[in-house]
Amino acid sequence: MEIVRHEVDKDADPQGLVYTFGGAEPVRTIRPGTVVSTWTADCYGGRVRSVGDMATQVMDTRFINPQTGPFHIEGAEPGDTIAVHFCSITPSVDWGVSTTIPLFGALTTTPYTAMLHEPLAERTWIYDLDVTERLVRYHALDSDLSIDLPMDPMHGTVGVAPPLGEVRSALTPGSWGGNMDTPEMRAGTTCYLGVNVPGALLSLGDGHARQGEGETCGVAVETAMDTTFAVELIKGAPTPWPRLEDDTHIMATGSARPLEDAFRISHADLVQWISGGLGISSLDAYQLVSQTALTPVANVCDANYTVVGKVAKAHLPGFSAYDGVHERLRAMAASIG
Amino acid sequence: MEIVRHEVDKDADPQGLVYTFGGAEPVRTIRPGTVVSTWTADCYGGRVRSVGDMATQVMDTRFINPQTGPFHIEGAEPGDTIAVHFCSITPSVDWGVSTTIPLFGALTTTPYTAMLHEPLAERTWIYDLDVTERLVRYHALDSDLSIDLPMDPMHGTVGVAPPLGEVRSALTPGSWGGNMDTPEMRAGTTCYLGVNVPGALLSLGDGHARQGEGETCGVAVETAMDTTFAVELIKGAPTPWPRLEDDTHIMATGSARPLEDAFRISHADLVQWISGGLGISSLDAYQLVSQTALTPVANVCDANYTVVGKVAKAHLPGFSAYDGVHERLRAMAASIG
Amino acid sequence: MEIVRHEVDKDADPQGLVYTFGGAEPVRTIRPGTVVSTWTADCYGGRVRSVGDMATQVMDTRFINPQTGPFHIEGAEPGDTIAVHFCSITPSVDWGVSTTIPLFGALTTTPYTAMLHEPLAERTWIYDLDVTERLVRYHALDSDLSIDLPMDPMHGTVGVAPPLGEVRSALTPGSWGGNMDTPEMRAGTTCYLGVNVPGALLSLGDGHARQGEGETCGVAVETAMDTTFAVELIKGAPTPWPRLEDDTHIMATGSARPLEDAFRISHADLVQWISGGLGISSLDAYQLVSQTALTPVANVCDANYTVVGKVAKAHLPGFSAYDGVHERLRAMAASIG
Amino acid sequence: MEIVRHEVDKDADPQGLVYTFGGAEPVRTIRPGTVVSTWTADCYGGRVRSVGDMATQVMDTRFINPQTGPFHIEGAEPGDTIAVHFCSITPSVDWGVSTTIPLFGALTTTPYTAMLHEPLAERTWIYDLDVTERLVRYHALDSDLSIDLPMDPMHGTVGVAPPLGEVRSALTPGSWGGNMDTPEMRAGTTCYLGVNVPGALLSLGDGHARQGEGETCGVAVETAMDTTFAVELIKGAPTPWPRLEDDTHIMATGSARPLEDAFRISHADLVQWISGGLGISSLDAYQLVSQTALTPVANVCDANYTVVGKVAKAHLPGFSAYDGVHERLRAMAASIG
Repeated sequence: MEIVRHEVDKDADPQGLVYTFGGAEPVRTIRPGTVVSTWTADCYGGRVRSVGDMATQVMDTRFINPQTGPFHIEGAEPGDTIAVHFCSITPSVDWGVSTTIPLFGALTTTPYTAMLHEPLAERTWIYDLDVTERLVRYHALDSDLSIDLPMDPMHGTVGVAPPLGEVRSALTPGSWGGNMDTPEMRAGTTCYLGVNVPGALLSLGDGHARQGEGETCGVAVETAMDTTFAVELIKGAPTPWPRLEDDTHIMATGSARPLEDAFRISHADLVQWISGGLGISSLDAYQLVSQTALTPVANVCDANYTVVGKVAKAHLPGFSAYDGVHERLRAMAASIG
Repeated sequence: MEIVRHEVDKDADPQGLVYTFGGAEPVRTIRPGTVVSTWTADCYGGRVRSVGDMATQVMDTRFINPQTGPFHIEGAEPGDTIAVHFCSITPSVDWGVSTTIPLFGALTTTPYTAMLHEPLAERTWIYDLDVTERLVRYHALDSDLSIDLPMDPMHGTVGVAPPLGEVRSALTPGSWGGNMDTPEMRAGTTCYLGVNVPGALLSLGDGHARQGEGETCGVAVETAMDTTFAVELIKGAPTPWPRLEDDTHIMATGSARPLEDAFRISHADLVQWISGGLGISSLDAYQLVSQTALTPVANVCDANYTVVGKVAKAHLPGFSAYDGVHERLRAMAASIG
Repeated sequence: MEIVRHEVDKDADPQGLVYTFGGAEPVRTIRPGTVVSTWTADCYGGRVRSVGDMATQVMDTRFINPQTGPFHIEGAEPGDTIAVHFCSITPSVDWGVSTTIPLFGALTTTPYTAMLHEPLAERTWIYDLDVTERLVRYHALDSDLSIDLPMDPMHGTVGVAPPLGEVRSALTPGSWGGNMDTPEMRAGTTCYLGVNVPGALLSLGDGHARQGEGETCGVAVETAMDTTFAVELIKGAPTPWPRLEDDTHIMATGSARPLEDAFRISHADLVQWISGGLGISSLDAYQLVSQTALTPVANVCDANYTVVGKVAKAHLPGFSAYDGVHERLRAMAASIG
Repeated sequence: MEIVRHEVDKDADPQGLVYTFGGAEPVRTIRPGTVVSTWTADCYGGRVRSVGDMATQVMDTRFINPQTGPFHIEGAEPGDTIAVHFCSITPSVDWGVSTTIPLFGALTTTPYTAMLHEPLAERTWIYDLDVTERLVRYHALDSDLSIDLPMDPMHGTVGVAPPLGEVRSALTPGSWGGNMDTPEMRAGTTCYLGVNVPGALLSLGDGHARQGEGETCGVAVETAMDTTFAVELIKGAPTPWPRLEDDTHIMATGSARPLEDAFRISHADLVQWISGGLGISSLDAYQLVSQTALTPVANVCDANYTVVGKVAKAHLPGFSAYDGVHERLRAMAASIG
């Protein structure tokens, strides 16, 4: 097992980070079986630091959500799958930030859900992060209330270069992964991504100290992250839409609009995945998914909306995803403890 | 505290049961503070009993999902809210049934998502129910696999008469409740429903021994239920969309198409509910919901789709819903244990 | 041919008019082959009469869109179709009215597309109608501009009692017709509606002196109408979704959310209708519709959205809809001049 | 006025054509005020030529819809608008082709509207084109029916490089134009596109001998085109979403999912455009659009769906779009006869 440290010049953004999936040269080649330790900027590139900082004033909001990478995964070819296991995800600073951004979010008019309303007010919330106590402290802006919430660090954005020669903004999720914004992308989870170009070109970023399901206002508790992940390559196994696995569940994601299509993608993939894995007919798998799926919404704010369908492994006797790669990566992560 | 037994003639269906919300005379008047013990038929009225029974052949599928009720809640007027607390929900038989129904479900063309495909095959699955062990046993039809799943009994359908003089099929969820099909409607949960007509006209049915989130194929593990619930009346408190509460979470439901509108309804209601309950501004509540909400999909198969937004009470210091009626009904339920 | 005058007491609203499809006793029985002359109120029941009248202040907006009827069509049974041919539709007053209504319309948050914005401002526009010159005069409220637009009178709402025992608000369109709000429902058009209950229970209202496609703000140029229509009964011919026919085109409507489902319903019906009418395969009809359909949006503001798919008869050699009933009703209309 | 001939090597595809907006080097620089005469391949690159040719067998369907271009428009900078006026669009061959493509189209399951159905059958239709008589002859595959339809040549795809550094498949429409698939893009129409990168990088292709509104099966009567267009540059005038203008109407397009968002984009843009052009308030323009808009659906099959909102200039006294550039380009086109 190789452990690689990928340094990021935290002051050099945006020079050293990328804002798209596809369209950038790889920063490094990673051999399958490697553990990578690196750092990711927060979605504002660190520019929004106090309740008086309005994102639209302190930065160019066309350049938002910088990604670390892309990493060229050695030997990855279209038709393969890469497995990215998150060994640890830890805030690298003691504060997080969230904001309302004009014309962005689930409960506001946007450039797509176009209306005649004025935008909602732009506001910035700063959270205290306590990594030791694993707490995220919320402070209301218009009154004195503060609330301690559990820390649950995750990456909103993980993905590879898209198919069809496309280059997509890091704000958009899709079949290549990207800005899925699901709280399931936490330490202990393995993310499976289908490879569209040689080397896959893996990038990640958008750390959240915690996030509600739906990311309603469009922004989680954004923070810079020290992150360690292990990468494996699964040859000859295509993965049409990103899948996740942790110790207890398998998960299929769909990212599309309207939201029911995101649901359909994730559940149709669950049906086919389970049908194959258990050796049962598609209709039998459809029935089993209908009675066992958990279906947390991930985001209803990004350029595509994301739904996660998940089934407990306890309900899938004998099922093994990708020949047990999650268990192997889990063990590898434990060994570096 | 009054305890009322409402008998249903199990052989008289459909004479004794109703297929709509609104449009039927009440079967009984219930005083607020009463515990009601009754029975509900399965969604097929008991007519689909073996893997050889196809719903479209053994019954008139225009008459599906019979409801017990409606109950006139004494003193309920438009602008009030009724609280329905589920004390116990127990399968009354040792089997459950699920099926695919042509042109119904999330992963098939339907009369609304109209396409040129032939319908998927119609199939019937019979489950063994073990109330003592709280197990639901799945049997694949096309191979030998059987799987034991945890029993988690719930009602898919709970509602009152709709507003605007409408009468709605028991297959449809909306602001009046109805066929929301959320697994959260289990024993221990209180459901809050806004009153649209004098007496509210509460009905319930569609028992599920368990259900996946999304009810993907359109049908859960359907079974007849022995159910006990307590009703309370909250005067002068409107509830625009159904809300739920259990010991750990408050929940807001939205039922609409497309699915993102169901999400918007539930999360906008969470924001306003929490804003009022904590005495914080709407934008501060928007922020808090964005970081704390859990958002399980309920159904993506019915005439409207349903999303549940929920927030842990642990994250809402000092919040009390409807002046603590859930706690009082919970205590009442415990006292009849 | 029988000609019947159905008088409406214009001052007795809401006593003499209905606000739902289904749920009301018929006001009169009509024999197939009859021409009916009657009057319909504007959607506000005549209560909004000047730019200073705000609908939410001068009326109870739960009771909006009153319908004339329902008419029991003699002999109509479920599985049949009624054909309603509009002989003439003429404004009965020299003014029309449109408004913005808080939380209603395509470019505003609504109770379904729930957001945190304040409602748009409520405003009332009064139009001058000149039946002789067939002009509708628009006056801007915030500046001096006036514009003469062509009069194109139509009924926004035409329908029958829904299936499944439902009673639906006159604000909602669906498979029973109702509030479709398509400008195609003008004099010279025949509307085909499937029968769900004995007698069909036909109602109509919501006259518009003209309307844009989409009815963007939610309200057309609303006005009271003197309307003459002929009714025919087509036995044994089901019509799942409302269809229209004029001298040049056949049309199929779909009413659903999201809007693409309304499109799918209308185009799938066009495919099947044309496949049957020309005796070609479904795929050949799919191809022909793909190259010939016109697809005007009808409304994107009501409880369901409506799309009209239409194909020129000139492109359908030998096609005859319902054995030529439109031509016979057209001739009947001409004979009464 | 300069007239430029841009030759395309018709046999060199895909070497000489591009499959994305953005991501390709310009083939030529065009000065504003220039008329360009060129050729575009059909969407299959000419590889589907008979009813026995199935697209999925005779070509790599990942490389579909080749575009001629991109052209660097001299002086175009972000924040500007380019105007592309179509002088003539003429089929360059005497045949056109349409097909069903598995998992593509409005009335079938797709990778996004994921279902468990088998794909619809793949079929190919060949049309006879008669440029002199302006006829397009349809031949049914499963029976003997042939129908002559009017020729109405247009380009399905016209666009520039997208914003945010994205590169988008030529199959996708959006704010940069692209695969809008509206029949309004015919000779005599001017298309306005906002500039996102220096030189704009204009491409076009996807000629249709005719197309129904909605492009229901996903494919029009595809054919190679000889096309002449004039380009003008409008400095300092941003155009957020593509607009069109012909001699009688102004038009605003929206491309998004769900379809109601495409509607909202186009109508919100109409409201703001007309508000500015007539000098009336937004609410007055909202009212005027509500009564005057025509709203043909463009496509309900592509990666985004497209709606066109249009208003007759006759209803907009004194309105002039972009200072009359359409009229000037129209005159320029006439002068080259």
